[in-house]
This record gives sequence, C-alpha cells and structure tokens, in this order.
Amino acid sequence: MTMTYEEFKEKVSSVILTEQGNCPVMPVVQMLQGKWKLQILYELFIQSPMRFGDLKRMLQPITNTALTNALKELEKNELVRRVQYNEMPLRVEYSLTQKGQDLLPVFYAILQWGMKYIP
Amino acid sequence: MTMTYEEFKEKVSSVILTEQGNCPVMPVVQMLQGKWKLQILYELFIQSPMRFGDLKRMLQPITNTALTNALKELEKNELVRRVQYNEMPLRVEYSLTQKGQDLLPVFYAILQWGMKYIP
Repeated sequence: MTMTYEEFKEKVSSVILTEQGNCPVMPVVQMLQGKWKLQILYELFIQSPMRFGDLKRMLQPITNTALTNALKELEKNELVRRVQYNEMPLRVEYSLTQKGQDLLPVFYAILQWGMKYIP
Repeated sequence: MTMTYEEFKEKVSSVILTEQGNCPVMPVVQMLQGKWKLQILYELFIQSPMRFGDLKRMLQPITNTALTNALKELEKNELVRRVQYNEMPLRVEYSLTQKGQDLLPVFYAILQWGMKYIP
C-alpha cells in the first residue's frame, strides 16, 4: 500500500456515509463477528466449492453446531452459497457469492499486514 | 481496488507464508476476533487518543468488563497503547500504536466493500 496513514485517514473520514446515510464500516465489522466467520470465508477463498466435511477438517476443532451456525449466518448475509445435490449420499457444497468474493481486498489487506508483523 | 478477483487470488496464493513459514492471515484474523476489538480499533482510527469513558460511550451497550478485557488484549497484541497520567482524578488515555495504525488499509478495504453493499 502506498498511501500514508494521514491520506488514508482523510479518505476514511471524507467518505464516511453510504447513500442512505449509514456507516459503511460498522455493519460490515459486525457482520464478520463470530469466532469462525472470517476463517470460513478465508478457507473458501483458498478453495471453493468445499463440502461441510472439508471445512470441518480445515477448521478443527470446530464443532458441527458452530460450523452449521456460522454457515447459516454467512448464507443469510449472502456471502456464502449453499448448493445441495440430491444424490445418495446427499452432497452439499459451499462457495462464495460475488458479494463474498468482493471481500478479497479485505483479506489482501490483512495479508499485507501479516507479512509485515507475523514472524 | 482495480485488481480482479483472479489477480487477487493469485497474489494471495503466491505469497501465502511469512519468512518463518507461518500463515500471514489466520493469526491476524484470530487476533481481531472478539465482539469488540475491531470496533475499538475503528473508533481509535476516527479519534485518538480516547479515554475509557469516551470509548464506552461510543460502543454502548458495552460493559466495563468487556471493554477492559478487549483493551487488555489489544494492548497485549501491541495494537493499542495505554497511557496513564497521574493526575487527580486519574486520567487514562488509549491510542493506536504504529502496528495498530498499520491496520488502516484493512478498514479502508472494509469501507470500500461497505460503500458497495451497505444501503
């Protein structure tokens, strides 16, 4: 990133409301709250689609309930798409929606920070 | 952001480890977990330094305990600096460290997303 902190800060302060007058940051921050949601999105960036069992393996020691709940919230927020194939045995796959894919710059910014500060 | 999803994805996949072979994303995601931490950092981006009472007012209905604990973790991760002035009454101020300020691009990316998707 080539902008300075001051330039960024100015930018953040000058575009602080959406068209309907809402804060464009806090609702997103709140939407991403929860122990597993960012981690699930990140796994789906790396590999998509993934099945429930794949996600569970990547995110252990997550419980079935915690994973189910987090996925439901991500679906409700239209970040993750759930597709059920009516085969036997039942196959369910999860992938990112366009809205979810558009969070990639957020992860990219996190990655930049991590490359600087994580040993 | 002008990069496409595919370009981003390639970038994310190609620089996936730090020098010591750690993931540069997951530790950061885990560090930012917790109901209030991102929100506290965001308030300190907007205005800094802030006193405990200021933060509490901005983040209501946060409890004293929740705010104290979140601030302690942010201090431990060296994202927030706590300065105590030995006046009467005691004055304590919180501000971002350089490491904390360097998270601004993350918030900027969140803001860009919010401007697109929050009504």
